[in-house]
Amino acid sequence: MITNKKIKVVTFGEVMMRLSAPGSSRFRQADSFDLCFGGSEANVAAALAGFQIAAEHVTRFPENDWGMRATSFLRELGIQTQHVVYGPQRMGLYFLETGAMVRASRIIYDREDSAFAHITPGMVDWEMVFDDASWFHWTGITPAISAGAASALDEALEVASRKNIIVSADINYRRNLWQYGKSPLQVMPGLIERSNCLVAAVGDIENCTGIRADNFPAACDALEKTFPSVRKVVHTTRRSLSSSHNVMSATLWTRDGITESAEYDLVPIVDRVGTGDAFIAGLIYGWSTGRNDEEALNLGMASCAWKHSVHGDVLFASADEIESLAKGVNVGQLLR
Amino acid sequence: MITNKKIKVVTFGEVMMRLSAPGSSRFRQADSFDLCFGGSEANVAAALAGFQIAAEHVTRFPENDWGMRATSFLRELGIQTQHVVYGPQRMGLYFLETGAMVRASRIIYDREDSAFAHITPGMVDWEMVFDDASWFHWTGITPAISAGAASALDEALEVASRKNIIVSADINYRRNLWQYGKSPLQVMPGLIERSNCLVAAVGDIENCTGIRADNFPAACDALEKTFPSVRKVVHTTRRSLSSSHNVMSATLWTRDGITESAEYDLVPIVDRVGTGDAFIAGLIYGWSTGRNDEEALNLGMASCAWKHSVHGDVLFASADEIESLAKGVNVGQLLR
Amino acid sequence: MITNKKIKVVTFGEVMMRLSAPGSSRFRQADSFDLCFGGSEANVAAALAGFQIAAEHVTRFPENDWGMRATSFLRELGIQTQHVVYGPQRMGLYFLETGAMVRASRIIYDREDSAFAHITPGMVDWEMVFDDASWFHWTGITPAISAGAASALDEALEVASRKNIIVSADINYRRNLWQYGKSPLQVMPGLIERSNCLVAAVGDIENCTGIRADNFPAACDALEKTFPSVRKVVHTTRRSLSSSHNVMSATLWTRDGITESAEYDLVPIVDRVGTGDAFIAGLIYGWSTGRNDEEALNLGMASCAWKHSVHGDVLFASADEIESLAKGVNVGQLLR
Amino acid sequence: MITNKKIKVVTFGEVMMRLSAPGSSRFRQADSFDLCFGGSEANVAAALAGFQIAAEHVTRFPENDWGMRATSFLRELGIQTQHVVYGPQRMGLYFLETGAMVRASRIIYDREDSAFAHITPGMVDWEMVFDDASWFHWTGITPAISAGAASALDEALEVASRKNIIVSADINYRRNLWQYGKSPLQVMPGLIERSNCLVAAVGDIENCTGIRADNFPAACDALEKTFPSVRKVVHTTRRSLSSSHNVMSATLWTRDGITESAEYDLVPIVDRVGTGDAFIAGLIYGWSTGRNDEEALNLGMASCAWKHSVHGDVLFASADEIESLAKGVNVGQLLR
Amino acid sequence: MITNKKIKVVTFGEVMMRLSAPGSSRFRQADSFDLCFGGSEANVAAALAGFQIAAEHVTRFPENDWGMRATSFLRELGIQTQHVVYGPQRMGLYFLETGAMVRASRIIYDREDSAFAHITPGMVDWEMVFDDASWFHWTGITPAISAGAASALDEALEVASRKNIIVSADINYRRNLWQYGKSPLQVMPGLIERSNCLVAAVGDIENCTGIRADNFPAACDALEKTFPSVRKVVHTTRRSLSSSHNVMSATLWTRDGITESAEYDLVPIVDRVGTGDAFIAGLIYGWSTGRNDEEALNLGMASCAWKHSVHGDVLFASADEIESLAKGVNVGQLLR
Amino acid sequence: MITNKKIKVVTFGEVMMRLSAPGSSRFRQADSFDLCFGGSEANVAAALAGFQIAAEHVTRFPENDWGMRATSFLRELGIQTQHVVYGPQRMGLYFLETGAMVRASRIIYDREDSAFAHITPGMVDWEMVFDDASWFHWTGITPAISAGAASALDEALEVASRKNIIVSADINYRRNLWQYGKSPLQVMPGLIERSNCLVAAVGDIENCTGIRADNFPAACDALEKTFPSVRKVVHTTRRSLSSSHNVMSATLWTRDGITESAEYDLVPIVDRVGTGDAFIAGLIYGWSTGRNDEEALNLGMASCAWKHSVHGDVLFASADEIESLAKGVNVGQLLR
Repeated sequence: MITNKKIKVVTFGEVMMRLSAPGSSRFRQADSFDLCFGGSEANVAAALAGFQIAAEHVTRFPENDWGMRATSFLRELGIQTQHVVYGPQRMGLYFLETGAMVRASRIIYDREDSAFAHITPGMVDWEMVFDDASWFHWTGITPAISAGAASALDEALEVASRKNIIVSADINYRRNLWQYGKSPLQVMPGLIERSNCLVAAVGDIENCTGIRADNFPAACDALEKTFPSVRKVVHTTRRSLSSSHNVMSATLWTRDGITESAEYDLVPIVDRVGTGDAFIAGLIYGWSTGRNDEEALNLGMASCAWKHSVHGDVLFASADEIESLAKGVNVGQLLR
Repeated sequence: MITNKKIKVVTFGEVMMRLSAPGSSRFRQADSFDLCFGGSEANVAAALAGFQIAAEHVTRFPENDWGMRATSFLRELGIQTQHVVYGPQRMGLYFLETGAMVRASRIIYDREDSAFAHITPGMVDWEMVFDDASWFHWTGITPAISAGAASALDEALEVASRKNIIVSADINYRRNLWQYGKSPLQVMPGLIERSNCLVAAVGDIENCTGIRADNFPAACDALEKTFPSVRKVVHTTRRSLSSSHNVMSATLWTRDGITESAEYDLVPIVDRVGTGDAFIAGLIYGWSTGRNDEEALNLGMASCAWKHSVHGDVLFASADEIESLAKGVNVGQLLR
Repeated sequence: MITNKKIKVVTFGEVMMRLSAPGSSRFRQADSFDLCFGGSEANVAAALAGFQIAAEHVTRFPENDWGMRATSFLRELGIQTQHVVYGPQRMGLYFLETGAMVRASRIIYDREDSAFAHITPGMVDWEMVFDDASWFHWTGITPAISAGAASALDEALEVASRKNIIVSADINYRRNLWQYGKSPLQVMPGLIERSNCLVAAVGDIENCTGIRADNFPAACDALEKTFPSVRKVVHTTRRSLSSSHNVMSATLWTRDGITESAEYDLVPIVDRVGTGDAFIAGLIYGWSTGRNDEEALNLGMASCAWKHSVHGDVLFASADEIESLAKGVNVGQLLR
Repeated sequence: MITNKKIKVVTFGEVMMRLSAPGSSRFRQADSFDLCFGGSEANVAAALAGFQIAAEHVTRFPENDWGMRATSFLRELGIQTQHVVYGPQRMGLYFLETGAMVRASRIIYDREDSAFAHITPGMVDWEMVFDDASWFHWTGITPAISAGAASALDEALEVASRKNIIVSADINYRRNLWQYGKSPLQVMPGLIERSNCLVAAVGDIENCTGIRADNFPAACDALEKTFPSVRKVVHTTRRSLSSSHNVMSATLWTRDGITESAEYDLVPIVDRVGTGDAFIAGLIYGWSTGRNDEEALNLGMASCAWKHSVHGDVLFASADEIESLAKGVNVGQLLR
Repeated sequence: MITNKKIKVVTFGEVMMRLSAPGSSRFRQADSFDLCFGGSEANVAAALAGFQIAAEHVTRFPENDWGMRATSFLRELGIQTQHVVYGPQRMGLYFLETGAMVRASRIIYDREDSAFAHITPGMVDWEMVFDDASWFHWTGITPAISAGAASALDEALEVASRKNIIVSADINYRRNLWQYGKSPLQVMPGLIERSNCLVAAVGDIENCTGIRADNFPAACDALEKTFPSVRKVVHTTRRSLSSSHNVMSATLWTRDGITESAEYDLVPIVDRVGTGDAFIAGLIYGWSTGRNDEEALNLGMASCAWKHSVHGDVLFASADEIESLAKGVNVGQLLR
Repeated sequence: MITNKKIKVVTFGEVMMRLSAPGSSRFRQADSFDLCFGGSEANVAAALAGFQIAAEHVTRFPENDWGMRATSFLRELGIQTQHVVYGPQRMGLYFLETGAMVRASRIIYDREDSAFAHITPGMVDWEMVFDDASWFHWTGITPAISAGAASALDEALEVASRKNIIVSADINYRRNLWQYGKSPLQVMPGLIERSNCLVAAVGDIENCTGIRADNFPAACDALEKTFPSVRKVVHTTRRSLSSSHNVMSATLWTRDGITESAEYDLVPIVDRVGTGDAFIAGLIYGWSTGRNDEEALNLGMASCAWKHSVHGDVLFASADEIESLAKGVNVGQLLR
């Protein structure tokens, strides 16, 4: 699956301002918000940049301080931003209340009418974007935001597939999006058919393609029949004992069968936002650097586990740290 | 037990300024204190107001900025304050050091000579207070503070029982109070005999009424004989594995027998102050909204469990959140 | 082992400025550092001063604000500082990133060329230092810093042994020190031979003395043969399930055999830096106040366990608190 | 101008979440935002409630945590909220960067499509709102937000004038609003003609009524001819030497001539947001409590000056404090 | 006036916990308090210790964490604490709201019934305290707190005068103290007659001795006649343009006439609490180190001016810094 | 002076970690440090990047988290970092205590033995660095750090002058540097002779070249005779009324005579570190965008004035903001 090209991963999607109540305080208690930025696809780029993999994020920001600030945020993380475009609308926001114990975490989105929601085909020069790229990653959030975003993604996929770039997609279905008049079933199949690696559980597959199956292998088998480009399907399994304690593992399907990752006991969780994105980054890192499926899957899970220990949307780990964790080295030590 | 009257709960007791060392720092380390307000009875009112139950708190505050601030604090929580009275003395304080692991939490009280300790009968117009009330809640702290506070409570109970208002009491015995020359055995029986629902363990029953028994059901049976107004007695059981990890459940006695709640594994605890008050609020909420004893008990325990995840004295939960937790729904999720 | 002299413990070693990233944030995320001071030997003195044991720390600080500030820090903790000396160089620093879950804690040292590294024999008046002392504690860090520090320690030990002061040593081997041209095997034996109580695991014994053995008792037996002054050897055993969860116990060797401490389940850990120093302080406290080996060992482990719950390098516990913990009293309570 | 009715002031307008960069940091530097709430009309109510004047604010909030939180915020300040209505849209936001010295303060609004912008006539029961009211205050911001907000205000004024309630208006013209297709000249005259006291400078009068005049008295004379209900017109004069240093005074027009306030030298300014609202609150307080025009004007300016010393949108002063300042008492003291 | 004895200054008085609202926030806005400790006499000792003058403070603290913490606070500053005594009562508190511009600063005291208020003669071994002392400083606050405190001070003065120790006193009159049944005129003369240097303005002299005079020199002349021990009288003059801007100077009376200090323009003031204490410390430093009256007065004013730039009750300046300021050196520089 | 080349400015010099005590607290009071990065030359690049001028900084960082973090910091500001080199040594630090009123600001440097101090010729590929550059800026700090740094700068200047790049230099003389055995007079002339624009006051000229003159014009005339490449010499004049209040202006010498800038009254100063660097950035911006000397000088002074209002080493202003300030527009406004 690895090409000879120099590795460079392109991601595309909305980046929002994240306003989180400090520590474990409730929205009703907070007198300040911690500020950072995040978005599912940019989180993948950020993790990869932390692994010293070249990563570029494409998005559309408002032409104001927040657009500049978000660009700086990406740049600080080492993400390339040369094809970010700007427009007159607002920055999408989300408010985060971090749960604890029996109390769930909560997100209030305030992302409508954002500069990204107003993106349309033609705004991004995808030919240039993909000029030196080896991998493209998108998620099911983007086509759920607006017709323009769905079309811009379609445009990107057209160029990416023409250039034989590997395409991965996290097709997670967000019920509270998809407000612009189209359903996932109308939009997602056309996007999936040009993708190679999917992050998708049985429910996502059904919501996005209509394929129903009793279990994950069956769903993947059926998926491959309809979308022969899809070679790998992966999903994580999370048991939430509490907001502070989860148990996780991941499963990978290929035509050759099922691979299971190591299981992680995650307690006490610092921040679970972006853990799925970290998982994908670990996978892309593994596959891009020539590991086999099991190795890549375990790098994904190590990356996912690590993210639970870091505040914010972003992984903030080096490749060495993730490699060590995947091998069970240094866990719980005091490294001097 | 539920009357046809519109539900409104009245609570009466001292509210103190709470000065807590930040995070898990020790008193000797703290360079600042987090400020909030709390008091066992007002905490019950606060939780109920959060459930959208009408709640009024009656107390006496100093006539200075802190009395104004504490009033604002109650008002912010949605608690009615129209019968709060004011006087020249000081605001009672307590300092809180939050424990962790093997290290216990500690409270240093500095509440002597407070405006509340100087309350006397005649200061509060209880006829007006109870005009539209359906429930009155008091605790064993109030009669332990001063002769005046005990008499004011006696006055309140006289009016409440005349108006057939349901009366609940948390008769917990605080050794370091009761400094004004009377013992619990001299004061508590006269208050308990006009109460209907008690929060009391075997030791509390003995300390407050002199009734000794081998176990909780036996103590309750004996209690009912002496105090026929008492219909329900409830107590929580807490195993403190560490300051960060407790296991809790609750037991309810009625003439019809014993009901046991679900058990909660609470880890890592954010703040255990006020968890007993949250328990009572859940019970009152359950009974007031027509649930049976088992349902009410489980709403009480859910409320108690939830409070362990929230900083401060106050529950900060909606009725929906507590109902969901009592059903085991949404635990540990990321709600978008 | 206890003399009739009034107890006073002297410690000698470097104290560094500690700059820790707030909470569990990574170095890359921190926008501020929490400031405190610490050093293995001074941490022992600090814990003892907290137990109301007279303790004096001897060190060398820069003649600037940081030297003054560090002196104030020791003084605030109740440590005597009358023999601290000052010089023109810099304050050693260390940066701490506190781990969580699978993520290890990290320390970046920046201690080269510190005022302490430039200490030389003759700078400290050891006769006066040990005038009223009953105990002297040193660690393997000091002789690893510089030739001057090793010589100054040698000088101290010469005076201490002449005055029949009990000498304890934590001979932990730090690979990233020992940069000045000598190896531990050249330096440590001469220091160990004037010491009575050692904190040392099998590996430390081999690194510092060349004695190889299959297990701890065998290593200690061999050690005593070579260094007859050594009467007690102790080491802790730590299983790091994660950065947030460790399990610990301690083992003591004397000629009479092996004593095992109680085991502690430590979760969630607040700060593990200085936990070994707290262990030693508990041991010294126990022995100095006339407890038997098992009691002293358990006071050491209680002290060690407690430190995991406190931010910073210093124990911050009273003798009562540690005595209670060693007896399993008050664990996880809310003390009013 | 003072009626015999018990004083109660009603205000109507949008309340936004205010997210301010801490201290004097720039938007590009901030890693957190301080959270409070504010809005021109609610700020007037808040100041009056602080003076112990009954005040009620009418607005429309989103039906989510932020709507609840904003309601609590008003309640905490002592503002009545019983006629607040709720709807499905978002909370309007504004971001504040506080200037210093030569650097200007900046606001980025993000208030489009808010719950308030979606208010329409019929949502508020104005008959009940004005049942016990003596004064109604509105501003030129409300009719600039949306056609619905303009109509709802029109509806309110219709009821208020029918009930002979005194009406004040701050007709300040905000260029970046008025985006819904109407111009001020189409909307404002109909609102002004039912108002009695205006805060308006020469430019505002021109923008809102088309009346051009060379100076303030001439503009007011002309204004009164067209809008005979208008009895008092007032405006403040601010010289901004820097963001930290302003000099202010106020001028009042009535048929009887011009009154000038004392001048205040304001340095160093803590927060100038809401200072105009504090001015109005001081005026309403003065007039409502029977002071003559000069006294009321000076209470307005004292209130305005005081607000410059307080962080947030709200005045946070007692009537006594403002009365003292208007008399020049206690300025710069340390009151024990 | 300077003796040949080694300089050591003893101070005696209450130390309170200071809880200050952060920055310039009002009491009603604060969600936390900054914690420090302070007291007029201990502030003098703290400043002197900062000048490397031996200083000991005598007081009585509660036997709890706050008493320990306050002792540590003094020790950290380099103040000797060996004669501090402890008792069962509470720690006195004061709350500070820092003013800005036109808004005054405010203090709410909560010091009644403190451990210090319960001090009585015989508790302190004054013979030992004054064994190596050259100077004793007291203030008019101490005899105003309680009969016991007044008597303990009387006892101290008896010993101090017997030992020919120089005695200074800041006889400032605090109206809200003196609640224990005696008036200043009954108590102060007996204390003043054993003192040598007074800080006192015309009003203080009248309140404390009954001597009325038209101006400061006349009052001092009369004072000396009644109290021949008094050799120097000094007072500061403060013009408060605002809370942020004061202009100050000082005047010294001796039999030889009047000396005026330099005048300081103080803007923007950081914290004016303790500025009078810093003034006295500068004076004592000057006189104790052999300066003439004018030099000492200017060191006092420099010290006073400097304190306005430092948060908390304590000066935090070196002798070099104050000497430089008195000479006008380094003002406003960036010292590298 | 402006070439036709696209503008790109290269800067070269050390970047240090800046640890500043929060607000106006003294080093002795600080319990935390605010973290940022800064260095005279990089500050110039940062300001230019903020003006949207392409800017690249060349330096040498340690190969650890701090080197990575500092690189991210530059990248976040929009500075190009592709020629930064890395090595095994430490990150230079400086501690900043911000003064207030009469109290001076203080810096404690801890920069010895940094990775930058170990730079040597050959480490940087200057041919590539200057490939697309139009301007090179250096300061007198770099040749003062180490022989290697001086040689590396010499190497850079050799390439820059060969490529006809405009060279500016701030030849400020830092007494506490120059510790490596050479004097400024041995090193600076060789560097100045390849520079075109100097920031230098009379004293700097004397210290760096030996040229003595009575006044600035005379010194510049003499300078030009010796160093004919020097076309423009500029210096700022600062009157420090206090740490909070400075008055500043600038003077420019060319062969055509003297130009004076506007004068700025700077109060209350937020942070004066880096104000000289901001001045230079404004000058370079002005000259690079084709303004005449007076315009450029006023852009420099506006930039310098603005920096006084911003915390940290970096200007954080847009070109528009500086242009407006130079024209006196928007000063002290609230921009919505």
